Amino acid sequence: MTETVQLDFQSYIATAHALAERAGEVILPHFRTNLAVDDKGAAGFDPVTAADRDAEAAIREILSETHPGHGVVGEEFADTQADAEFCWIIDPIDGTRAFIMGQPLWGTLIGLTAHGAPVLGMMNQPYTGERFWCGETESYFTRAGETRPIRVRPCPVLDNAILASTAPELFDAAEGMRFEALSRAVRLRRFGGDCYNYCLLAMGQIDLVVESGLKPFDILPLVPIIERAGGIVTTWDGGDPGNGGRIVAAGDRALHAAALEILSA
Amino acid sequence: MTETVQLDFQSYIATAHALAERAGEVILPHFRTNLAVDDKGAAGFDPVTAADRDAEAAIREILSETHPGHGVVGEEFADTQADAEFCWIIDPIDGTRAFIMGQPLWGTLIGLTAHGAPVLGMMNQPYTGERFWCGETESYFTRAGETRPIRVRPCPVLDNAILASTAPELFDAAEGMRFEALSRAVRLRRFGGDCYNYCLLAMGQIDLVVESGLKPFDILPLVPIIERAGGIVTTWDGGDPGNGGRIVAAGDRALHAAALEILSA
Repeated sequence: MTETVQLDFQSYIATAHALAERAGEVILPHFRTNLAVDDKGAAGFDPVTAADRDAEAAIREILSETHPGHGVVGEEFADTQADAEFCWIIDPIDGTRAFIMGQPLWGTLIGLTAHGAPVLGMMNQPYTGERFWCGETESYFTRAGETRPIRVRPCPVLDNAILASTAPELFDAAEGMRFEALSRAVRLRRFGGDCYNYCLLAMGQIDLVVESGLKPFDILPLVPIIERAGGIVTTWDGGDPGNGGRIVAAGDRALHAAALEILSA
Repeated sequence: MTETVQLDFQSYIATAHALAERAGEVILPHFRTNLAVDDKGAAGFDPVTAADRDAEAAIREILSETHPGHGVVGEEFADTQADAEFCWIIDPIDGTRAFIMGQPLWGTLIGLTAHGAPVLGMMNQPYTGERFWCGETESYFTRAGETRPIRVRPCPVLDNAILASTAPELFDAAEGMRFEALSRAVRLRRFGGDCYNYCLLAMGQIDLVVESGLKPFDILPLVPIIERAGGIVTTWDGGDPGNGGRIVAAGDRALHAAALEILSA
């Protein structure tokens, strides 16, 4: 399997770029328009927009042509061949709340797994024209036609760390207490950001991202971007992040260990 | 005075555009680089960057040539002729925390007051290429050479409102309780954003922005942008927002009244 993955990696990356490009074209005309916001019926406020659905439909259409044998797991539609060897993991608009507020911190997440393990990942922000993605061994940032490798920054101690998280509402009471304890230990804690924060971590701007209640498609596409930039991402108890849930990403392994001590206490 | 203001308004706006342009040129090369972050010594974490100081210096240099009789009040340097009839109010980087994290939600704020009353305002975000500003009667959004008028949206009741605020740390305990009560009454509450949120309110994307501890230069340049887009901005007790402090901005006057009932309770 590993050899197949390596041989085909470039074609998978090319597919991911094409999916990101198409999703951006579909989503962008809906950004900062007066959207009809549906409620999925889940707990809390969970908007689904026409942009979300149309983008995933467009992505699925491309994949059914380019990789008919691959599975597709997305946020908006039922899984397709989710037990296939290769499976695309799609979140057309991660950060729908930021999207409906007009903040450009949402992104299109595109991931590929082989037997459940992340092979590649991409985050596309079409309004700012930013794309964060990974090659086989490195991660990259592309904007305005220019691509450069990105890398986490060293930050071994909590005292110096910048911590980001999307919103305090992610945490239940017990989780919130641990998160607040971690917040008190760092230099700066900031809310807001969704997928964008994980990419800024991979870029060396943020040191820690801590969240809870994530779905697999919220995190799987980001895992290889973070890891190939030199970072680490696990659950709060140090486990595999691929199933979502309570997630902690760090740019520095010593910082990750220090955060885990507080989060898993 | 009013006639003078009207006659000279176009030249003041032209100056503001020039200041925004120059500030963007100075700041942008520092964005997402590894900055040396100083601490002003104030309570909490208050970074001042080279970008902040250099941008304000560049702005002051232009103003000393174009309007030597005008005052300048900025975040980074001592006030200059602050008792002059016309006074420029400058915050070179509003949202320094967002800036050091690499999030593009910070902005350069440029305002002009006449006898203390806001005459014009501008917010420039050079990374996304966005500029929010006001003419004499309307507010505008400019990006990629295209300018269009912006307008708040109707949203008379809290039930339907989107509420934004930069961070829970803005509030002391008593303020925090009122802010949480307001948060429970709205459809969606979201942290993160600084000056960017007030501009999204003027654009009809956000319905309420509620903050505390603002400095005059944090809000004065935004007041005419909000008001000429049809919005309202006051202190929590309905007073003049020009001195900063506890600020509530709303796109809809009925919503503003409903928010004030909770915030001033």
